[in-house]
Amino acid sequence: MLSVKEAQAKVLENVRPLRAQPLGLGPAVLGLVLAEDVTADLDMPPYDKSMMDGYAVRVADVALGRAELRVIEEVSAGQTPRLPVEPGQATRIMTGAPLPVGADAVVIVERTKVIDGGTVRIEDKPPSLGQNILRRGREMRVDEVILARGARLRPQELGLLATVGRVIAQIQPAARVAVLSTGDEIVEAPDKPGPSQIRNGNGPMLMAQAARAGGIPKYLGLARDRLDSLRPLITAGLEADVLVLSGGVSAGKLDLVPGVLAELGVEAVFHKVAMKPGKPVFFGTHTHSPKGTNLVFGLPGNPVSALVCFELFVRPAIRGLMGLDPGPNIVTAILTEDFTYRTDRPTYHPAVLVSEKGGWKVRAVPWFGSPDLRGVAAANAFVVFPAGDHVYHAGAELEVLAVED
Amino acid sequence: MLSVKEAQAKVLENVRPLRAQPLGLGPAVLGLVLAEDVTADLDMPPYDKSMMDGYAVRVADVALGRAELRVIEEVSAGQTPRLPVEPGQATRIMTGAPLPVGADAVVIVERTKVIDGGTVRIEDKPPSLGQNILRRGREMRVDEVILARGARLRPQELGLLATVGRVIAQIQPAARVAVLSTGDEIVEAPDKPGPSQIRNGNGPMLMAQAARAGGIPKYLGLARDRLDSLRPLITAGLEADVLVLSGGVSAGKLDLVPGVLAELGVEAVFHKVAMKPGKPVFFGTHTHSPKGTNLVFGLPGNPVSALVCFELFVRPAIRGLMGLDPGPNIVTAILTEDFTYRTDRPTYHPAVLVSEKGGWKVRAVPWFGSPDLRGVAAANAFVVFPAGDHVYHAGAELEVLAVED
Repeated sequence: MLSVKEAQAKVLENVRPLRAQPLGLGPAVLGLVLAEDVTADLDMPPYDKSMMDGYAVRVADVALGRAELRVIEEVSAGQTPRLPVEPGQATRIMTGAPLPVGADAVVIVERTKVIDGGTVRIEDKPPSLGQNILRRGREMRVDEVILARGARLRPQELGLLATVGRVIAQIQPAARVAVLSTGDEIVEAPDKPGPSQIRNGNGPMLMAQAARAGGIPKYLGLARDRLDSLRPLITAGLEADVLVLSGGVSAGKLDLVPGVLAELGVEAVFHKVAMKPGKPVFFGTHTHSPKGTNLVFGLPGNPVSALVCFELFVRPAIRGLMGLDPGPNIVTAILTEDFTYRTDRPTYHPAVLVSEKGGWKVRAVPWFGSPDLRGVAAANAFVVFPAGDHVYHAGAELEVLAVED
Repeated sequence: MLSVKEAQAKVLENVRPLRAQPLGLGPAVLGLVLAEDVTADLDMPPYDKSMMDGYAVRVADVALGRAELRVIEEVSAGQTPRLPVEPGQATRIMTGAPLPVGADAVVIVERTKVIDGGTVRIEDKPPSLGQNILRRGREMRVDEVILARGARLRPQELGLLATVGRVIAQIQPAARVAVLSTGDEIVEAPDKPGPSQIRNGNGPMLMAQAARAGGIPKYLGLARDRLDSLRPLITAGLEADVLVLSGGVSAGKLDLVPGVLAELGVEAVFHKVAMKPGKPVFFGTHTHSPKGTNLVFGLPGNPVSALVCFELFVRPAIRGLMGLDPGPNIVTAILTEDFTYRTDRPTYHPAVLVSEKGGWKVRAVPWFGSPDLRGVAAANAFVVFPAGDHVYHAGAELEVLAVED
């Protein structure tokens, strides 16, 4: 049986980044990856610019730090100075305004006093050349690459792109993720379960996990454990970049999913991984798609199995398709309380992970196994216990799967 | 002048969580806060349930670990057993299926062998009572609170809510955040700036920051430095929970924003904070709103000032309105490279923050001041340098403002 690391490597071998698309730049592309080099279409600032409110002066006039100068003009941001500053003169200037010809420093307004309508008195340290001035092209020069292909779009990148006039850019799009729940024993949330039924918690959970991973989730509905129910829904799911099924993959007699997937041209890459919960997890690829290979995951129906398998295998695939660091985010943490655990396979146990001065600390939370989603609602991570009977003492170092908050 | 911490406290004093609303449960409510206690409407599991594929047996029949039992029935998840298991009998059972009356353990299928169509041979350790069985009500009992008011909605919480039949719940809604850019020197991204103009990078950046903080951003447009332009746009902005303006708040002659805000009934709480960049930041409240107090922030127009002030003051307000931990996320990190810095106010300097074994590490990046958004595009945090002339050596501990990725 594959280890988790081997299985993750097999998933990533089959991930090719999605083709870039021209997308409008706004909050909807936050977190996506730029797929082109973007150059400046102008010098920024386009002129020598005052960085403070004050007076534009000639350094030579204020060599001792004190001077009385005649104010010839006032310039605000958005205006253009009309007059050069000659010896003995100054221009009242606002933050962001262009520096007048002749001036070579700005004295901040707090160091000045208007002594009559036309004259200002300066009392300051001697100014340095270029003081409080941002020189033309200091931020960027025309044709310079200001953001390179591969940059992740955060608020500052969206600000920069607007600054150079971009409202559309080539971007790696978000992966489309189809979610399909399966099982005769399942009813949807609005329905009352019969005596041998349970409600579908996995559908809403996996939709939310897909969205949190950066994908665009689409819910396909609930398939029954019959070929005529599974076939059309799986066929619809193969239109997406990623198809995530829950249920129908363990070794039970009615677990029909792998057979239907094979019939529809999905090639199995693995089916079973040495882990707990989640051992029956299935991964396959569909290469007949006109849009390129799509990726198919069959997750066990127990909610915590489905959640953990999504974080370990599906999330890295979604992020890889989008050109992002696939993760998963594994950290080494120090156990804060003794814990005894016995397991035949490496086990992902719900835990609370906190960052403290000195590093990550982790504490396992009470949990009774793969159906127990309430244990996971009290957690923000999974501590990994290796196979075997172990007594872990406070202070032990363990690997932890951190889950996005 | 207020310190950053004092100013943050004044913001939070004026934040009242938004009124809860009934919202549909789906990916759109991810990260929001539940505003009611949710109880189970059923026992989960609703019956004693097999946790494995195998055979439901009577422990007494397999006391030595070996037995040959007559298979009387087969039960899958979603089905109900019809026959009780009598001594000498077993029922083939699938994961998730209800346990038949009489059985008190499940032996996994891997430890069994069908020796003819009607008989199974078991070779295992002696089973323990209840082995591989999840007892009725072990996950939750009817009327038990399974998720309490205040829970943050993550995928596992959405799964749990579906499990108890919820498709709508009382939730603290996302804050509506209006963004207004101001300034005569600004043109929008699609336009070519004239000789003394620059493009509006702050609008798209602040929209993205509002979305990243969890708010619902709305762009109001660009106001000119004139009363007849500012008034109607600010009036429109006061419809939102939070109004964020950029530009127009420093001490320059044309900085009209505080005056218009006062005229429209916004009460100033502070105007200026001892920090760099961002000193002229304005915060006020508008109590005449029919929906309750709304919060108004005037951010300086320089892009990095606007970005830092948003993270330090606006983001905590948005999160507080939504019932979330307001932050900001300040960590103590160890400087990895010597750095010399001279500043007259506590300065937020762009930096790269990484989590390593042993804790947070930080490195300042090259940066020339508040207009330099490119420096911030190379960063994921701001290291805080206290006022004064300082030489910091590698190994020094400094506070760092971590910015959401």
